Amino acid sequence: MVQLREDERLDYLLAEDLRIIQSPSVFAFSLDAVLLSKFVNVPIQKGKLVDLCSGNGIIPLLLSTRTKGSIIGVEIQERLCDMARRSVNYNELSQQIEMIHGDLKEIVKEIGYSKYDVVTCNPPYFPTPSQEEINKNEHYAIARHEIMCNLEDVIRVSSQLLRQGGKAAFVHRPGRLMDILSLMRQYRIEPKRLQFVYPKQNKEANTILIEGIKDGNPDLKVLPPLVVYNEQNEYNPDIRRILYGEQ
Amino acid sequence: MVQLREDERLDYLLAEDLRIIQSPSVFAFSLDAVLLSKFVNVPIQKGKLVDLCSGNGIIPLLLSTRTKGSIIGVEIQERLCDMARRSVNYNELSQQIEMIHGDLKEIVKEIGYSKYDVVTCNPPYFPTPSQEEINKNEHYAIARHEIMCNLEDVIRVSSQLLRQGGKAAFVHRPGRLMDILSLMRQYRIEPKRLQFVYPKQNKEANTILIEGIKDGNPDLKVLPPLVVYNEQNEYNPDIRRILYGEQ
Repeated sequence: MVQLREDERLDYLLAEDLRIIQSPSVFAFSLDAVLLSKFVNVPIQKGKLVDLCSGNGIIPLLLSTRTKGSIIGVEIQERLCDMARRSVNYNELSQQIEMIHGDLKEIVKEIGYSKYDVVTCNPPYFPTPSQEEINKNEHYAIARHEIMCNLEDVIRVSSQLLRQGGKAAFVHRPGRLMDILSLMRQYRIEPKRLQFVYPKQNKEANTILIEGIKDGNPDLKVLPPLVVYNEQNEYNPDIRRILYGEQ
Repeated sequence: MVQLREDERLDYLLAEDLRIIQSPSVFAFSLDAVLLSKFVNVPIQKGKLVDLCSGNGIIPLLLSTRTKGSIIGVEIQERLCDMARRSVNYNELSQQIEMIHGDLKEIVKEIGYSKYDVVTCNPPYFPTPSQEEINKNEHYAIARHEIMCNLEDVIRVSSQLLRQGGKAAFVHRPGRLMDILSLMRQYRIEPKRLQFVYPKQNKEANTILIEGIKDGNPDLKVLPPLVVYNEQNEYNPDIRRILYGEQ
């Protein structure tokens, strides 16, 4: 049994045998989070993973289908962290996933330096919004705008968490590519795999997926393009496979 | 009439009413140069353009079909520069294109600082080769390896040549993306348009096209993917259009 609050729903994660609590008024995960959880390289049998800016726990939940390692999710919004915990319990994953309600900028001294194999983050994409926007929906504002943390915080903390040779993977907007690459290098996470997501074959990329290795050697690969929709506005096979598990 | 030396050929540039002198033993232009000459934004009616590492003049020749501006090509290898000059003459473009035999590192004091609207370069891609490789074919070694100039030279000189607001466009390998982006920013050419070229839809990118604006504002766009071959190993329509002018 699961307790749903207010307008919360218990949604299916279609490709997986999982369900997740969502609320349209508070937060709903995006395709970007799903793509990131499939993009990142994870150890299969064991390992320690951390997901920053976890929201309602979408990435820890999806990662649990790819690794037997332990997963910590960090979320600063208590309401979202609570949703994530209830989803973890509903899916009977509390042995594997721990949700921590806290500020990622303070998390390293709590959970430890240089001991994690993988860090993921789907961070807020946009600069700080107007007060009006914050008033309208604070939950969305915090999830989407750099109010509580910025890109440099995310990358600095990721680097502090990672052991040498550990991997960090992020999803972001192409407009921030320069910043991500230079911050990753600045904080010793050498960019290794970069993938561009195009909404359609003839459209500009609107999303980037990037993975780096702490203290890795320079050698950046640009993976095949991921094109979301075909000309008929249907998901392409790659995306259907990721979302629905179709072969 | 044109004088052809040794094993030189007078090849057609298919999409254009142009011909170019090539020699398999010295240098033959690549698809990359053609893609760069179509990728770069050029002023149509007038302007001053410079192409560095011009080789046999492929980029100046192709640019002449897109702009009425004046074009300077700079090539350090006398043999290639001579081929380019004869192609320019054959195509009756000597009013528009001037080929200079010289070292790009010395070119700015010869042709002037901060007065050019566009600089293009398809530079050598690879680090310095072994002496054996140089002995085997010096012409190819110089065109392909960073023997006479490196990426930083190319970007520094491009910036010196450009007026404020002028554009530089380069083609290179994805493995150098980090270096290109950081060198461009270091030399005040803000990256604005980036395009990845994938040999096939399901393959890693093997080429990048990038354009920046001198002293421009940060705002990087990632253009639609350019996929060279279809599943049947035929050129895709985008590429056929670029190479053969097909609609």
